[in-house]
Amino acid sequence: MDGGVGRWVGVDVGGSKVLAGVVTATGEVLRTALRRTPGRLVAAEAVEDALVDAVTAVTGDEPLAAVGVAAAGFVDRDGSRVVFAPHLPWRGEDVRDRLAQRLGAPVLLDNDATCAAYAEATYGAGRGVSSMLLVALGTGIGGGIVVDGGLWRGQHGMAGEFGHMQVVPDGAPCECGRRGCWEQYSSGNALVRVARSRLGVEPTVLTDLCDGDPDRLTGPMVTEAAESGDLVARAAFASVGRWLGVGLANLVAAFDPALLVVGGGVAVAGDRLLAPAREALEASLVGAGHREVPPLVPAALGPSAGLVGAAVLAGATV
Amino acid sequence: MDGGVGRWVGVDVGGSKVLAGVVTATGEVLRTALRRTPGRLVAAEAVEDALVDAVTAVTGDEPLAAVGVAAAGFVDRDGSRVVFAPHLPWRGEDVRDRLAQRLGAPVLLDNDATCAAYAEATYGAGRGVSSMLLVALGTGIGGGIVVDGGLWRGQHGMAGEFGHMQVVPDGAPCECGRRGCWEQYSSGNALVRVARSRLGVEPTVLTDLCDGDPDRLTGPMVTEAAESGDLVARAAFASVGRWLGVGLANLVAAFDPALLVVGGGVAVAGDRLLAPAREALEASLVGAGHREVPPLVPAALGPSAGLVGAAVLAGATV
Repeated sequence: MDGGVGRWVGVDVGGSKVLAGVVTATGEVLRTALRRTPGRLVAAEAVEDALVDAVTAVTGDEPLAAVGVAAAGFVDRDGSRVVFAPHLPWRGEDVRDRLAQRLGAPVLLDNDATCAAYAEATYGAGRGVSSMLLVALGTGIGGGIVVDGGLWRGQHGMAGEFGHMQVVPDGAPCECGRRGCWEQYSSGNALVRVARSRLGVEPTVLTDLCDGDPDRLTGPMVTEAAESGDLVARAAFASVGRWLGVGLANLVAAFDPALLVVGGGVAVAGDRLLAPAREALEASLVGAGHREVPPLVPAALGPSAGLVGAAVLAGATV
Repeated sequence: MDGGVGRWVGVDVGGSKVLAGVVTATGEVLRTALRRTPGRLVAAEAVEDALVDAVTAVTGDEPLAAVGVAAAGFVDRDGSRVVFAPHLPWRGEDVRDRLAQRLGAPVLLDNDATCAAYAEATYGAGRGVSSMLLVALGTGIGGGIVVDGGLWRGQHGMAGEFGHMQVVPDGAPCECGRRGCWEQYSSGNALVRVARSRLGVEPTVLTDLCDGDPDRLTGPMVTEAAESGDLVARAAFASVGRWLGVGLANLVAAFDPALLVVGGGVAVAGDRLLAPAREALEASLVGAGHREVPPLVPAALGPSAGLVGAAVLAGATV
């Protein structure tokens, strides 16, 4: 519904950003509010404060009908708790009920990439497609699976954790406690790490953008530098894109989907990311040349996909 | 049907063996016949000769009602051709129609692991389970996917090629033309290669079993040696088992199934393979400790699962 007894709001809670938006029943985003995620080494309540703050900013005095929370973590089967989240401090807290109490509205909690996959399949790049994989490149990698026209959430609601598939034995350490996870090579964090490793080694505008302090380098700085033609930034995108294609080849070997959709903040770079990814996908996919390689396309709903899916899933329950 | 207008026969065509069997409508195997696969560098007809020979041996003078062929390769969507098979010479030939003509009965052609997954889900280890992954360890690794109680074959019929997911960048070369595929580290071929690398380095009964010629070492020799307590053979199983667990952790991160079923010839080793696999799965799975780890069980139908599934799928069409 629109404007009647209250608004549908979706909130995407990622490792770096909390993005809230008012969403219509047709998946349109009317306005958004952005807050920083306070990090993963803070009290759980600090993330909830940022979330409530963003929701309040986006709704103002309007009544709330339902709030959907798309969280970057494992959500339990009944949708009440985030049981584990590498980039967030939530560890089994009853987030849904605590937020419902603070916001005074029913709250639906789901995995962020599952929400994004639902939104892309319903309103976005996957409309009319009977199978697709969504890979969301943000701080890490999230994933969502559509088969036979519907979401496959997994037997325990934990499917789609593509980012923690190991691609390099004894590789780079991951926030999840293991090593060599795909998201260490293809994500916003990976983009920054690759670029950072060249600071002081090669001339790059990134040195100025981060005021000479490698620790202050961010993903958006690398995106901006790549757009202005900076070679170090472009090489970082090429590396992240190649690893994206290698990991996607593994997923296509396993699932054989009709379509691959890439979302998340890093995907705004478009073909700077997707062109090397397509090349690596073709080169890495078993049987390429003897089979159809699924199209690799950017998410149509951009960084809002997660909050749109969460809002619409939440709205459908009230 | 049983005995009326003819027999249902299933044939599993793998990289090393052609195994044919007469199968009842309840999935029971009445008798089998085994032939060697002539290899992948021969004429396509040579494999078909071995197949027809095995079918004839198993049926004798009895009439054939339907033949199901479970092939270790990519089968096209309408089930008429094997478009690509790393371990077989078939490359796009119309295998189904050629075999139907030679055998004088309708032939159904499908991927071997898909057939095995169907059989295990219907009659075997996965009975009553709504989602499972089957991993078949033979010459390579085949895979089958059950979600929401039914087979997921992929958009183009090519899902489940788990063996060609890359687990080691620039790793061991694979018959598929790429490098570092999972089946190079966890399969019958991998078992033999690991054991072979220790011949002449450590004392082992394998040296006698293969008459001192490493090229004559086979998987069954390693299995036999491991049973007799040979440490080199046991270490080979432990290595293949650990890699099995690492790859399964990747698949569980992606699919979150209720059950993992391990079939194929290598799985007859039981816990010698599955114990190290379970340990590696627990250690490698993202969020382990915060989630249910699916049980990892041996296929109940053993090496016959593929031919049983093929026969029953073929019988259902006549």
